[in-house]
Amino acid sequence: MLEHGGRLRVAAARYGIPLADWLDLSTGINPCAWPVPAVPASAWLRLPQDNDGLEAAACAYYGTEHLLPVAGSQAAIQALPPLRPPCRVGVLHPGYAEHAHAWRRARHTVTSVSAKELNDIVPQTDVLVLINPNNPTGARFTADQLLHWHAQLAARGGWLVVDEAFMDAAPEESLARFCPRLGLIVLRSLGKFFGLAGARVGFVFAEPVLLDQLYAHLGPWTVTAPSRWVATQALADFPWQQTARRRLALDSERLAFLLKCHGFTPHGGCALFQWVCSPHASEFHDRLARRGILTRRFESRMPGATDPPSLRFGLPGDETGWARLDAALQALSDATICA
Amino acid sequence: MLEHGGRLRVAAARYGIPLADWLDLSTGINPCAWPVPAVPASAWLRLPQDNDGLEAAACAYYGTEHLLPVAGSQAAIQALPPLRPPCRVGVLHPGYAEHAHAWRRARHTVTSVSAKELNDIVPQTDVLVLINPNNPTGARFTADQLLHWHAQLAARGGWLVVDEAFMDAAPEESLARFCPRLGLIVLRSLGKFFGLAGARVGFVFAEPVLLDQLYAHLGPWTVTAPSRWVATQALADFPWQQTARRRLALDSERLAFLLKCHGFTPHGGCALFQWVCSPHASEFHDRLARRGILTRRFESRMPGATDPPSLRFGLPGDETGWARLDAALQALSDATICA
Repeated sequence: MLEHGGRLRVAAARYGIPLADWLDLSTGINPCAWPVPAVPASAWLRLPQDNDGLEAAACAYYGTEHLLPVAGSQAAIQALPPLRPPCRVGVLHPGYAEHAHAWRRARHTVTSVSAKELNDIVPQTDVLVLINPNNPTGARFTADQLLHWHAQLAARGGWLVVDEAFMDAAPEESLARFCPRLGLIVLRSLGKFFGLAGARVGFVFAEPVLLDQLYAHLGPWTVTAPSRWVATQALADFPWQQTARRRLALDSERLAFLLKCHGFTPHGGCALFQWVCSPHASEFHDRLARRGILTRRFESRMPGATDPPSLRFGLPGDETGWARLDAALQALSDATICA
Repeated sequence: MLEHGGRLRVAAARYGIPLADWLDLSTGINPCAWPVPAVPASAWLRLPQDNDGLEAAACAYYGTEHLLPVAGSQAAIQALPPLRPPCRVGVLHPGYAEHAHAWRRARHTVTSVSAKELNDIVPQTDVLVLINPNNPTGARFTADQLLHWHAQLAARGGWLVVDEAFMDAAPEESLARFCPRLGLIVLRSLGKFFGLAGARVGFVFAEPVLLDQLYAHLGPWTVTAPSRWVATQALADFPWQQTARRRLALDSERLAFLLKCHGFTPHGGCALFQWVCSPHASEFHDRLARRGILTRRFESRMPGATDPPSLRFGLPGDETGWARLDAALQALSDATICA
């Protein structure tokens, strides 16, 4: 089990600041989530049923019908590795750590690969796993580049696994519409853009045989009935999606600008977070936490790792949050200059 | 993947009767479920967090603190078999078929055992899996008997797995309070008694090391945040639980009496269903379905199986339902006598 950024409760205990007083920027989740209406009471009572409208709404939203609803990307991340006999797996690093963890658990030989090394490793790899846009670096890969790698891997019976957890703000860059294609696996989630992390709903796009294997492996009723209902409505709410995309683009730019103004120029980012590298990342994380602002700190524990210590900043959800972050960054900046 | 009784949708299509017009007695789920209040909107937004109150409420309700919340009993049923190297597993038959299915999938040697044969098979078994009270037969096992079998199994490093999905109406018979005990694994669920099958919440009771293994195997966030919130409230609603127990006892007796009056004397049952054996079970199931009443039909597909064809009847939820069932059983009874 890995540690996760969502653990606000732990920080609250550690810093002695009540839960309600935190500005939680640690998650990369849209702070202005899709507004969940009252769920019909009946949804809690019956076993979840396939094809209750969720699959249809997802087909329309993602632009492909070869999909399987799962209990968040995490469920797919854990379920994919056991479906192959042990093989050589290249995993983008830095990146969401659960991928490498899951492939190692299933006894594959996992190599961490930087974005620059990806092209070189493809010929020596059976499965390539990456996140697009990457978390936390914000690195992006074009569909052309990805399909080129996929073709090389698929020709040898390999897989390209693309985790698109942060893709909803720029859906035209998604590989979902190229599915099904032998050896191409795309993961999506309602946790980040829709802000529905508590609902545990995601989708896998892949060839039908692989989706059948995943379904058999995961078993029935993995997505709750209320979550299915909520996800169905959210995926069909086109006007909200359009507005959210515009808002996230503005807020992400605003966050990058704010960080830059205080001397913390981001090294990357996407619509839902900005990424700041610094040898003082650990200290910054601590100083911000003392003011009740939780960021996500990345520090590689891998032997020989060269990725720099860094902080990921999610978006504040309201003007009070923006002002608090502004003030905290100003204080951090002053302290850094004085030191 | 096995077929399940909850698939009302399939029956609706097959018999050309709209979903809303069915009296669904196929599930064994309490038709008068715990009344779910409005869930706080915030529950959908954040990742589910351990120790948010759910574990504490469960400790109080079940009377033991060595537990792990899981996404319904089904999640535990699938996760347990891979935690042991292939061994000899005795599974009560007839019984909920997912148990045998899951142990076979994990390459164990599974033997189907009737209730009468259980005592004899223990010495030749590493894992014994049973349901108490059993589904669909309603057979019950005393705590003394179960602990006796458990002691024999545990002495050889074996497990006794007791699925108590239908135990909440008679909690004094549960083995949960005897946990943790090496090699004793008890499964509970909020799907049946609380009627919250859509929420996917259950619990595993076992020794701490095994719970840790299960947690690592299942991964984080398996129970959604809204489901955690709902389950926490339901487990703490002592007055509702008391009333529900009294009501289920009366309704179960009423159902048994109604069936008997029409010549379909149950061979067993519990608070949430009655079980009727008949060589004509398949025909009865069909005739009831033509009138929009869905029951659960059991017919062994195992070679050499001697268990009789049977029907399981869940409880109607209101007087209209009772009257409909009464009329349908009368018609069935008339047709059977005429034939």
